[in-house]
Amino acid sequence: MASDDSLKEFLETAVDAAKKAGEVIRKGFYQTKQVEHKGSVDLVTETDKACEDLVFNLLKERYPTHKFIGEETTAAYGVTELTDEPTWIVDPLDGTTNFVHGFPFVCISIGLTIGKVPKVGVVYNPIMEELFTAIHGQGAFLNGNPIKVSSQPELVTALLATEVGTKRDKGTVDFTTNRINSLLYKVRSLRMSGSCALNLCGVACGRLDLFYETGYGGPWDVAAGVLLVEEAGGLIFDPSGKAFDITSQRVAASNSLLKDVFVEALAQSG
Amino acid sequence: MASDDSLKEFLETAVDAAKKAGEVIRKGFYQTKQVEHKGSVDLVTETDKACEDLVFNLLKERYPTHKFIGEETTAAYGVTELTDEPTWIVDPLDGTTNFVHGFPFVCISIGLTIGKVPKVGVVYNPIMEELFTAIHGQGAFLNGNPIKVSSQPELVTALLATEVGTKRDKGTVDFTTNRINSLLYKVRSLRMSGSCALNLCGVACGRLDLFYETGYGGPWDVAAGVLLVEEAGGLIFDPSGKAFDITSQRVAASNSLLKDVFVEALAQSG
Repeated sequence: MASDDSLKEFLETAVDAAKKAGEVIRKGFYQTKQVEHKGSVDLVTETDKACEDLVFNLLKERYPTHKFIGEETTAAYGVTELTDEPTWIVDPLDGTTNFVHGFPFVCISIGLTIGKVPKVGVVYNPIMEELFTAIHGQGAFLNGNPIKVSSQPELVTALLATEVGTKRDKGTVDFTTNRINSLLYKVRSLRMSGSCALNLCGVACGRLDLFYETGYGGPWDVAAGVLLVEEAGGLIFDPSGKAFDITSQRVAASNSLLKDVFVEALAQSG
Repeated sequence: MASDDSLKEFLETAVDAAKKAGEVIRKGFYQTKQVEHKGSVDLVTETDKACEDLVFNLLKERYPTHKFIGEETTAAYGVTELTDEPTWIVDPLDGTTNFVHGFPFVCISIGLTIGKVPKVGVVYNPIMEELFTAIHGQGAFLNGNPIKVSSQPELVTALLATEVGTKRDKGTVDFTTNRINSLLYKVRSLRMSGSCALNLCGVACGRLDLFYETGYGGPWDVAAGVLLVEEAGGLIFDPSGKAFDITSQRVAASNSLLKDVFVEALAQSG
């Protein structure tokens, strides 16, 4: 069991790593405008890899006994099973399409689970200079100021976020747009920013009332964001309404007033 | 015919007005988090009105013979016909839903038409501190730096923006989601930011490759943004591929390489 002091130290280390990786992301973000399109795609791969190396090296030096799960490592060595050990789950560059195009919703996401429960979460958008941080049981913060989820009590005035993902088979595309069609009658409006981690942060700070996504990349997209939502007073659950499973690639988030009606609306939407 | 010197002066006046209105928007934006939901909706109306008054008073004092078209004025006094006279077309607060929810895509849009042609355009997002400016024939700028549209040559790697609008009748919702369904097979991904003017600016600075919207509020949503796209080297057209009509509530934007394939994809989508 990690003490509060050690969680605080873990958070400080994660913020240090996120800030350093943020510099790499920021540099690449402004470079993509100077290179041809093919070059931008190479740049995203290089930036992704450079950020993951930077973060994992820094964390491994400090915590050699901890486990590590990352998008790039998983792509290279296959899935690492999530155990009860302290495990750092890192997305070195969430919003890669945005990065390539210069759309400012990009971030690094660093989460730490202990006993499979998220204990520390850091999401940093170096373009908009927004640093979201949370420690289990100690609240959520944006640039050091406490944040909380919205107090929106009704679906009809709620702002919903989701994403269309990357799969383009007919089954997935039809499911995606049928669900949107059904939900549009029930909510105020829809936003798509292109970053799962930043959508969760949007719910955490009350800019968004509702978010769901299925079929995202892996636990690295949500490990930090789900803690941010919960520490900001929100709820994280499976879109079916069942308990959230970090390994499932299915997530939904809302404030505590909207969960039941949101789950019902999702159930009616496909 | 306005001289280059007078266009430059018109732009400076518009920037001055936009910055002043931006302060009002910024103040309200951060207040919405402190008030109950009903209060937020009142606040949007107040901010909208205060910004329009501020901008129109400043412009009218400087240019008493010019004409004025605004969202609030139109709501109050009915549609003002667009003539060949110098006409300021103003959206005092584009992205009102974002404003209410604290989602940072909000702006003031100020366009000037002479002979019904956009000659000066200013779009200012006071939250992200981005000021987009253009004078007809003199290029487009973001915070004083020249911007240009993307050089994206293919639909399959293009980033598309659109909006779901505010109408929720079955015909509109079905058309909206069927169109998205069809386009998703052809483009890389989809973004919805909630501001028509800022979507046009996104195309102008190459963050977005494609944008279309039908059924938006009125010419105030596009008067400045269409000039920004054109001055950044992009194209503005009706989603059908025909010439753009500022009074039609139908707009599409792209770089010069993508227009034909985009129009074809839109035609196939409904």
